[in-house]
Amino acid sequence: MMALRLARAFTGREKIVRLREHFHGWNDSVYGQPRAEETTPVAPGLPAGMLATSIVLPQNDVDALDRTLREDGGLIAAMIFETTGAHWGTDPIDFDYVRAARELTLRHGVVLIFDEVITGFRVSPGGAQQAYGITPDMTTMAKILAGGLPGGCVAGRADLIDQIAAREDGGERISHPGTFNANPLSATAGATCLSVVADGEHQARASATAAELARGMNRAFVEESVAGCVYGQASMLHIAPGMDVQPPDGYSWGWCALPKRPPPVGRGVAAALRLGMLNEGIDLMGSGMMVSSAHTMDDVARTVDAFRRTLRAMKDEQPNGLISPPGT
Amino acid sequence: MMALRLARAFTGREKIVRLREHFHGWNDSVYGQPRAEETTPVAPGLPAGMLATSIVLPQNDVDALDRTLREDGGLIAAMIFETTGAHWGTDPIDFDYVRAARELTLRHGVVLIFDEVITGFRVSPGGAQQAYGITPDMTTMAKILAGGLPGGCVAGRADLIDQIAAREDGGERISHPGTFNANPLSATAGATCLSVVADGEHQARASATAAELARGMNRAFVEESVAGCVYGQASMLHIAPGMDVQPPDGYSWGWCALPKRPPPVGRGVAAALRLGMLNEGIDLMGSGMMVSSAHTMDDVARTVDAFRRTLRAMKDEQPNGLISPPGT
Repeated sequence: MMALRLARAFTGREKIVRLREHFHGWNDSVYGQPRAEETTPVAPGLPAGMLATSIVLPQNDVDALDRTLREDGGLIAAMIFETTGAHWGTDPIDFDYVRAARELTLRHGVVLIFDEVITGFRVSPGGAQQAYGITPDMTTMAKILAGGLPGGCVAGRADLIDQIAAREDGGERISHPGTFNANPLSATAGATCLSVVADGEHQARASATAAELARGMNRAFVEESVAGCVYGQASMLHIAPGMDVQPPDGYSWGWCALPKRPPPVGRGVAAALRLGMLNEGIDLMGSGMMVSSAHTMDDVARTVDAFRRTLRAMKDEQPNGLISPPGT
Repeated sequence: MMALRLARAFTGREKIVRLREHFHGWNDSVYGQPRAEETTPVAPGLPAGMLATSIVLPQNDVDALDRTLREDGGLIAAMIFETTGAHWGTDPIDFDYVRAARELTLRHGVVLIFDEVITGFRVSPGGAQQAYGITPDMTTMAKILAGGLPGGCVAGRADLIDQIAAREDGGERISHPGTFNANPLSATAGATCLSVVADGEHQARASATAAELARGMNRAFVEESVAGCVYGQASMLHIAPGMDVQPPDGYSWGWCALPKRPPPVGRGVAAALRLGMLNEGIDLMGSGMMVSSAHTMDDVARTVDAFRRTLRAMKDEQPNGLISPPGT
């Protein structure tokens, strides 16, 4: 993973700090999650010497981060996390934690990397970091960056990134070869998409549409007397069946941790929700929804209606309540 | 890297055997080359525990492979190499070595992986392995597979690949998440391209065109009294200024190691060749050329003429001979 390679070469350190449940692709350097109460990830097929370089901490626990950096800061090259929290904000990161991470990594000379693969250009033209007003040392990006085609990039401080440059003296550099580099179609799609989203208008429209969708679905939960909520940030929404509180404005708790953990969702409920919505012509992406600027208020109304009918169908099929125990 | 993850999980071993100068992308598991006389790669920014899993051996040295597998076979999960040799056959692998690698890996329970990212579907519809008549345990593919768009795949023995499948008992599997999975444009381009190249007609035409191009350029070397040759396999060609032998048929030494090592090419010569050809409207890819079925005999004639004029210009500018010492 290029960002980590740059951070490791720059600092001369090998370890990295990641956060529990945060996903950074399946690159060997960032893959695997630890067992409960542990910090070293496990993943079949990855060498122990690679897994041992990761320290995986609980999100939003400033004390754990502070303690780890005090004890092992001199061994830690980088800290990386999904900028709005685990699984693109399904478990939102607390803004105070992000601020603390920035301060602590600076203090210990640790390279702070925001993974904005999903949030980049979506939360705002400058990503989640622009919304936070917090600048990391490096940022990883993809998706909107390449206009829906495969492509990605690493941006950041010049002294980190410039390690890629060929050196006049022929000295060691971090080279970046690759089969998919400079694919002209991805590059063109990306450049075009970035120019389209540069002024923030598309982001504002998508976020406003998402807010309306969340409010409509939250009303459906209430009016159908089903415990649950939809919450999100910007144009990213998450469905939490069984959650007995809803965001104050029917849409978002802002850049804050959830007020409480959503209850576990049984497999039966998850499957019923997905299949019910499919029957209505709505293809949910797991328990989440990403709204685009192409979605209209008609799409919102149709989705809310579909959701209401799905809740009714689920109630009819599961008269004892929607929230099944985990695994059922 | 998925192929290695599958091999490591399957065998319960961590080490891999690679070959010197063979390139498998910049994934952390396969990156870096060792210093002379060493077998452990070095690469800035990669953890020592990761680099230590690679044993990098010299290509075409059956004894070294035999010795390594005898001594450490029980620790070695996989052997991977570019199927036609280092840098897509710039330094061709010997067929006898490939055959020995197949036998020795089988004997020691080591998973043999052919990297056919470049050779797959190019050498033949079944890749270089079809031309060899040798079947590896797994194959990595990209490029033609995705019809020129970003995309790749790993194929192989069912018992290795099936580790990706979700398990009924919820047990551990090798999952394969990713931002770029199932990109519809890459998938469509790939499926279309594979159906076009399935009968081998395009490969035969491209290879025949490449043979004509090699013969024309080799004639130019001779007629301009410049030491050098063009050689290749299938539709992949390489230019070796200073080489004082040429392939017997003006095109290929077949699936064999070169009869002698080409002399080092000075930076001045490499740059002059590249710039001279650019002046003629031909954009060389380093010292190599890949010919496609879209290239015509007119393209061949134009390229050979451009090459002849470039050789003349280089002679005019460097009357003391084309072969500069390395680094000049």
